[in-house]
Amino acid sequence: MIKVGIIGATGYAGGELVRLLLGHRQAEIKWFGSKSYIGQQFSHIYQNMFQLVEEKCLDDNMDELAKQVDVIFTATPQGLCASLLNEDILNKVKVIDLSADYRIKDVETYEQWYGLRHASPQLIEEAVYGLCEVNRESIKNARLIANPGCYPTCSFLSVYPLVKEGIIQTETLIIDAKSGTSGAGRGAKVDNLYCEVNENMKAYSAANHRHTPEIEEQLSYAAGKKVVMNFTPHLVPMNRGILITAYASLKEEMTYEEMKAVYDKYYEKEYFVRVLEKDVYPQTKWVEGSNFVDVNFKIDTRTNRVIMMGAMDNLVKGAAGQAVQNMNLMFGLEESMGLQLVPMFP
Amino acid sequence: MIKVGIIGATGYAGGELVRLLLGHRQAEIKWFGSKSYIGQQFSHIYQNMFQLVEEKCLDDNMDELAKQVDVIFTATPQGLCASLLNEDILNKVKVIDLSADYRIKDVETYEQWYGLRHASPQLIEEAVYGLCEVNRESIKNARLIANPGCYPTCSFLSVYPLVKEGIIQTETLIIDAKSGTSGAGRGAKVDNLYCEVNENMKAYSAANHRHTPEIEEQLSYAAGKKVVMNFTPHLVPMNRGILITAYASLKEEMTYEEMKAVYDKYYEKEYFVRVLEKDVYPQTKWVEGSNFVDVNFKIDTRTNRVIMMGAMDNLVKGAAGQAVQNMNLMFGLEESMGLQLVPMFP
Amino acid sequence: MIKVGIIGATGYAGGELVRLLLGHRQAEIKWFGSKSYIGQQFSHIYQNMFQLVEEKCLDDNMDELAKQVDVIFTATPQGLCASLLNEDILNKVKVIDLSADYRIKDVETYEQWYGLRHASPQLIEEAVYGLCEVNRESIKNARLIANPGCYPTCSFLSVYPLVKEGIIQTETLIIDAKSGTSGAGRGAKVDNLYCEVNENMKAYSAANHRHTPEIEEQLSYAAGKKVVMNFTPHLVPMNRGILITAYASLKEEMTYEEMKAVYDKYYEKEYFVRVLEKDVYPQTKWVEGSNFVDVNFKIDTRTNRVIMMGAMDNLVKGAAGQAVQNMNLMFGLEESMGLQLVPMFP
Amino acid sequence: MIKVGIIGATGYAGGELVRLLLGHRQAEIKWFGSKSYIGQQFSHIYQNMFQLVEEKCLDDNMDELAKQVDVIFTATPQGLCASLLNEDILNKVKVIDLSADYRIKDVETYEQWYGLRHASPQLIEEAVYGLCEVNRESIKNARLIANPGCYPTCSFLSVYPLVKEGIIQTETLIIDAKSGTSGAGRGAKVDNLYCEVNENMKAYSAANHRHTPEIEEQLSYAAGKKVVMNFTPHLVPMNRGILITAYASLKEEMTYEEMKAVYDKYYEKEYFVRVLEKDVYPQTKWVEGSNFVDVNFKIDTRTNRVIMMGAMDNLVKGAAGQAVQNMNLMFGLEESMGLQLVPMFP
Repeated sequence: MIKVGIIGATGYAGGELVRLLLGHRQAEIKWFGSKSYIGQQFSHIYQNMFQLVEEKCLDDNMDELAKQVDVIFTATPQGLCASLLNEDILNKVKVIDLSADYRIKDVETYEQWYGLRHASPQLIEEAVYGLCEVNRESIKNARLIANPGCYPTCSFLSVYPLVKEGIIQTETLIIDAKSGTSGAGRGAKVDNLYCEVNENMKAYSAANHRHTPEIEEQLSYAAGKKVVMNFTPHLVPMNRGILITAYASLKEEMTYEEMKAVYDKYYEKEYFVRVLEKDVYPQTKWVEGSNFVDVNFKIDTRTNRVIMMGAMDNLVKGAAGQAVQNMNLMFGLEESMGLQLVPMFP
Repeated sequence: MIKVGIIGATGYAGGELVRLLLGHRQAEIKWFGSKSYIGQQFSHIYQNMFQLVEEKCLDDNMDELAKQVDVIFTATPQGLCASLLNEDILNKVKVIDLSADYRIKDVETYEQWYGLRHASPQLIEEAVYGLCEVNRESIKNARLIANPGCYPTCSFLSVYPLVKEGIIQTETLIIDAKSGTSGAGRGAKVDNLYCEVNENMKAYSAANHRHTPEIEEQLSYAAGKKVVMNFTPHLVPMNRGILITAYASLKEEMTYEEMKAVYDKYYEKEYFVRVLEKDVYPQTKWVEGSNFVDVNFKIDTRTNRVIMMGAMDNLVKGAAGQAVQNMNLMFGLEESMGLQLVPMFP
Repeated sequence: MIKVGIIGATGYAGGELVRLLLGHRQAEIKWFGSKSYIGQQFSHIYQNMFQLVEEKCLDDNMDELAKQVDVIFTATPQGLCASLLNEDILNKVKVIDLSADYRIKDVETYEQWYGLRHASPQLIEEAVYGLCEVNRESIKNARLIANPGCYPTCSFLSVYPLVKEGIIQTETLIIDAKSGTSGAGRGAKVDNLYCEVNENMKAYSAANHRHTPEIEEQLSYAAGKKVVMNFTPHLVPMNRGILITAYASLKEEMTYEEMKAVYDKYYEKEYFVRVLEKDVYPQTKWVEGSNFVDVNFKIDTRTNRVIMMGAMDNLVKGAAGQAVQNMNLMFGLEESMGLQLVPMFP
Repeated sequence: MIKVGIIGATGYAGGELVRLLLGHRQAEIKWFGSKSYIGQQFSHIYQNMFQLVEEKCLDDNMDELAKQVDVIFTATPQGLCASLLNEDILNKVKVIDLSADYRIKDVETYEQWYGLRHASPQLIEEAVYGLCEVNRESIKNARLIANPGCYPTCSFLSVYPLVKEGIIQTETLIIDAKSGTSGAGRGAKVDNLYCEVNENMKAYSAANHRHTPEIEEQLSYAAGKKVVMNFTPHLVPMNRGILITAYASLKEEMTYEEMKAVYDKYYEKEYFVRVLEKDVYPQTKWVEGSNFVDVNFKIDTRTNRVIMMGAMDNLVKGAAGQAVQNMNLMFGLEESMGLQLVPMFP
């Protein structure tokens, strides 16, 4: 049994980690950390867990945690993990950080986009970017995982094969992303009230969303050259789900079958990435509650562009599910253990 | 491995059966019956099942099915199961009927409320009403299960302890029920279009909903005398979930602790029925995707009434989940096998 | 032109007042009071008003307001209006209070249910309960209007004719109410976040909601004797709308036509109360954005009860619309001026 | 009083026309045409109109209509208006066609994208494309108006100033559009059921949506050269609203102030187009129920692109509202008569 500690267990990503780990036969949650609710029953915060979780919320004591558990998940605001983590802790325990603290290799880029001073830059180099489909082997031996952001996971997987194979002109890449409201977290803000979000849709952070450099960095590795692109997120009146619609010009004409073969080359053996059939476009509801990413594409011969699409549950593959997938790899378990969840429809 | 056949696999309840049985380690679906989609890939109808179900939809051939499988689930419109079933089939295979055909013992009452002629009244007597928490022992030996309706399951379990113990005046009982839209099925009707349901709420079938006699019959068994009550369902803009608010006058004054003890007497050992803590009221989201029913009550000393509340996922405990729970009992498996699903929140 | 001042203009009811008054040809808003947003452009808080309202938000200075305007609307938390109002102000200006401060004649009842000390109990007697359909004549001469609560308006109008005519046994009356989320206000609370409300439904404040004594008081006037009843509100995932389902036993048998005649007696000439046709039940969407209340009833001969139903937009007839209706009466204008809004569907 | 006939009065756009015209002081609806509901009370189809509309639905007899009314609105499926209309009718009555029949000047393009044979191609040349902000003068004298599509209206107005002034490279233009579900009409289809749309989002008709040539034609007029672009619509779980996010490369660098001046040049005097303030992005809820289009833009200096955004109510400015705006112009009335509706929030 892997002993698990969670810091930030009462946010939406933390709550989802609890949901997934309760169904994982090789993991056991030993520490429900939540600064805001110390001393309260976890199941009073998430009543869906009533009679399933008896524990109370504990504080963020990472040193103590390092002694008691095998792996720590940090599902906390940016900057917190970086401020708590050090070599000593990493010597005792594996860490999977769901925040952005170790995702971006260039600390200046991180500090500029996040407006924060990074408290442990010396650990960035070692951290492995936990996108399992791409970095599987490095993850297996990592002590510290930077669990990818929700938008970056879905954006990257939607366009990866065509970028990697040099099929699109990366300087024409535009990613138009749509997200359910759980991505905004559980903080009490007027903008996220039911009445403000329901029957409404908007773009936000156009041209300056923090996930932009993360996506660009990963795409640059795939392309073998610097990628700069547009990323525009939108808020959608639904709880869960991210939908990506990406556009790019093709370097040369290509048939559907040729492009399908490229996607299949990368994803045929990937359990969690499903390349849909011709002209069947991803829908967020078809992956809800599961760790799947559904992708597809459409070639527009009129404009010589390809439209790449992806759908994912932002709290599962975009956060807690991918974190568990990383844990499985790090501990030598079957990669899909505890994650073979059938999407819930309707 | 239990071999399973489903008739009506492409309705919402049928789709949910598939979702649950895919995660059940002792069951295997051998037949995806769907009259409307014969010959089509099941996963083309429910794209959430893409790469999880490879089979095509088959017809409703119950004789053939009886030879091939161990248990048949019928998730079909009223009247169909009754028209297909006979002694010969029941000698070969167990049947769990999710329609109302065998729920009501008095065939005249059935025919009157459903406006149908019952095609196999001789089988009604044998059928066991599959409310596991009440009829557990009879279910274990049954050949034919009448799987309870969604409203009846949640209504009954919310009020059962107080009716059974004679604490409320049953002639004052009023059940005000609210349901998500999946309860209305997947048929293409204007009334169930997104734009008609969203941002809207209404009562329907007041004083004449077909689930009324089913609830009354079961409550009558519990009370040991005929129960007649009011039942009013409402349509709510959400996919899943039933919420029950029931009212009745108390025979005599009672404290919270005394009444809590009554609920605990009946549900303390029931895994799927959770009696919430004092003043915590059931919410449909806290049970979504799971087989739980959350119940609670509030005594109003001003009016000498008790308000009884229950929340449930109509497609799980209200249909497919309870059907699997029945299957588990009928085949000597652990009752909760494949059903220990953590509710998904948010 | 009537000069209008609003205190609490940036809450949902305040914003709706602005929407309605902008379309009122005899009223002009002179003061947009909002303690939380003093000095900010009103249209920065409600961007729907961009280019329609140029003014900035001002403070709650009621003395100053009394000099500048003809009527003050207070759409503020309980207790505020009572603490600001006095005889001096009422000598200069008419006041329509959308809070509960002057709705309940018995100050002890108010203080008990609201947990507040009433700061100006001497004004309660004079205040007229602004339910126009019932108190039309008194409203015309009032200086101070207690604008009815949202639940009380819809509850009362749904059952009023049968209570007034002595047709139901009032001691059996049960009101099960369902409300959209705007009724909970615009405060930033976790419970009202999109992800907590969407795909969810719950009862709250069962047996102790503050609108209970208000409904009981008004029904008692109608019945000519003390009415005590059950009132249970529920939160529904929609922005606007209240739906009432009320139950009571009949004193004696009655036909549909007889009961319809009773409803018509009270509402035939009421523009804003629509008695629907037989077996057509109220839906909140059919009144959204308008000042209408749709009502209907169903007699259940099996139980000798009547089910009374009503639907209303909580922000219009349940708050701002009724307030404007009161203003029209107080200033001798046509009662429906500015309120002949066609409900928006879908 | 303008006498109005509506063909297709029971679709969502037709229903919205009724809503708007009921509040128009110079128009009177004389004919509620609806092939599907002939002989039924209009208010039985749209219960929001109960007691507001007493008329029954009539058939599609355009010849008879031409004798009785001053203007006919056709809110019908593609092809119907073209099949009914002729010179004789146009000599008697003005026609505002809400379908696509006369929007595209090149009949081959129309026939190819719509898969229909055009039944009255001789009338196409005369028809005026009813985008009031652009073709105001021609509209005033027109007999036949091709009322613009919902996506084209919002797409065009969002990018028009920059295309017209030659600021963007039109060959880089990409329009990513999101629409509420009322755009899909009131037909009973499984895909538009509540449970299929709620908690879901998807792209559809990528690279081949029928509104593409309409947008391209209008943009080509503005650009003075042929424009070919990408247009991808998405279905969003909300009733009303279209949100446009458009991307294009700038010909040369430009400051915010310079670009704002360009937008203001075209829209400063347009009542219905609101250019929002810096960094305030359009939200569909801020225009719901109104005839406004809110637009704004963001320059991304990293990629040298501009992101253009627009929000609109698809049933108002995208259909019925714009149709009334056209009627006002054609009959010499104030352009905004009956359309000064304040958006409803929340």
